[in-house]
Amino acid sequence: MVKIVVIGGGTGSYTVLRGLKRHTSDITAVVSMFDSGGSTGALRDEFGILPPGDVRRCLLALSPEEAQTKVLRELFNVRFDGSGSLGGHSFGNLFLTALTKISESEAEAIHKAGHLLRIRGQVLPVTLANRTLCAELSDGAIVQGETNIDIPKHDSSLRIRRIFLDRPAKAYPEVIKAIEEADLIVLGPGDLYTSVLPNLLVEGVPQAISKSGAVKVYVCNLMTKTDETTGFAASDFLSEVTEYLGGHPVDFIVCNDKLGSQDLLARYARQLAFPVAIDKSAIESMGVRLISTNLITEPDLIRHNPERLADIIVSLIEK
Amino acid sequence: MVKIVVIGGGTGSYTVLRGLKRHTSDITAVVSMFDSGGSTGALRDEFGILPPGDVRRCLLALSPEEAQTKVLRELFNVRFDGSGSLGGHSFGNLFLTALTKISESEAEAIHKAGHLLRIRGQVLPVTLANRTLCAELSDGAIVQGETNIDIPKHDSSLRIRRIFLDRPAKAYPEVIKAIEEADLIVLGPGDLYTSVLPNLLVEGVPQAISKSGAVKVYVCNLMTKTDETTGFAASDFLSEVTEYLGGHPVDFIVCNDKLGSQDLLARYARQLAFPVAIDKSAIESMGVRLISTNLITEPDLIRHNPERLADIIVSLIEK
Repeated sequence: MVKIVVIGGGTGSYTVLRGLKRHTSDITAVVSMFDSGGSTGALRDEFGILPPGDVRRCLLALSPEEAQTKVLRELFNVRFDGSGSLGGHSFGNLFLTALTKISESEAEAIHKAGHLLRIRGQVLPVTLANRTLCAELSDGAIVQGETNIDIPKHDSSLRIRRIFLDRPAKAYPEVIKAIEEADLIVLGPGDLYTSVLPNLLVEGVPQAISKSGAVKVYVCNLMTKTDETTGFAASDFLSEVTEYLGGHPVDFIVCNDKLGSQDLLARYARQLAFPVAIDKSAIESMGVRLISTNLITEPDLIRHNPERLADIIVSLIEK
Repeated sequence: MVKIVVIGGGTGSYTVLRGLKRHTSDITAVVSMFDSGGSTGALRDEFGILPPGDVRRCLLALSPEEAQTKVLRELFNVRFDGSGSLGGHSFGNLFLTALTKISESEAEAIHKAGHLLRIRGQVLPVTLANRTLCAELSDGAIVQGETNIDIPKHDSSLRIRRIFLDRPAKAYPEVIKAIEEADLIVLGPGDLYTSVLPNLLVEGVPQAISKSGAVKVYVCNLMTKTDETTGFAASDFLSEVTEYLGGHPVDFIVCNDKLGSQDLLARYARQLAFPVAIDKSAIESMGVRLISTNLITEPDLIRHNPERLADIIVSLIEK
């Protein structure tokens, strides 16, 4: 059975995992652990545990849509009213928090949740270290905390020069093992500086990816993100990924070449988010093979289609 | 298979149910729904749902001690630190609250939780009406709210004259059905005025019990409770139960005749709680058969032994 490692977090990983679980049950979802906003951030501040939000989404993505887990999956999506004493918490996050209280480690809590949700594959925290994601902006200013980078308060003419962790963090050993044994490693899609690249800041992770004999794929985002990747073409995403991989490029970049409806594009444009241009020659000059195709399928929704994306990713093993 | 209905709530029902589930899987736990204190009270005030505390305990009592439900059972007992944002909530209560959000009714939420915990039998709310338990004291004053009766703030020389609901409540129809079909109905043990008798305030419940052809058993408490049943002998418990059953006595009263250790008794005595005296002739003059035996088995713990209690209760069907 083909062994796949998906590296990211956020809704991008959710989409990829949902599609890939139809192809194999040997999937490892590696999740960045630096989320600091919302329900996740509040629980992290109070209970000192790893941020549960991305973990919760990956668990749900890998949980089979069968009757036996229906109630638990629905529960994981319950969110309490923000004005009340349960302060906008996602029940899934509370579930993971409570599990941590009866487990030896956060990794064991995630494992137990995966067992209850009967997931195919596994969800692994990229590190068990409690670290803060930081960004250096183009004027040299430092922004601390994932949520402050994700939803920036700084002057929007400033760009992110680099990201780093407040202190070094070691990879969770199971992550390195999964990367070493993988046939296919998928990076992205997802917010570049707050979901995908933070995983590559963890000691041992970029080295293991580079050394691995797996086919390596970067799934490029569909749209740029205001104040984070404004003006980025596909090659810009790719060159950042290459840099954080220690200068070793991936084998493939998968891009979407189908535009959403004009109405939708207009709505995005008002928020200064635009389709990612596919600059073929710049990509190929980096030694990366470009797969450019329609990944949307529903013109009314600018989202990757999970099944279509997974089919294309899996087909790259043969190429 | 013998059909048993257990009426109560609180830790008393927990003990009885744990023992009885070894004898039959046709058990119905009827739970009073007027609890207003602690985590349960806070959730009830905010979310307007039925109080989950007693339901949670009954679900746990009926959940088999097997590997498949181990993690969920442990989770149900997790309590968050009282000083934090999750304010001393029991995770089991949050679980039931979240389940209510994805269910048509509270009864359906309890059913779903029972399914997840693979319980033997069922747990039923005595009513779906949201009502406040009230007590009239011996000086005519009215106390409102279960928690104010349970942990009284009033002059401890005052006695409870009667309890009532702020407005009439109709029984949950499944409860009446279970009572009608029962071979054995068990009332108690448990706090008389705040766990056992409140069930009998619900319209239709005492009538159904009286009409039922089942063997009816009242399990008397081991100790009196300060400010609630101070000075009560077994016949006093029994006469209150008879009164709230509309004057129709049960068939049996089960009493414990073994004292706890002197050290333990001294500790209880300092809180003005004493062993319940078994006044045989008063009991028999009420037409009730007395079963008096050792129900403690561990002298260091003044608690009913679940297995021993269940064996005795079940044996009464043949008598």
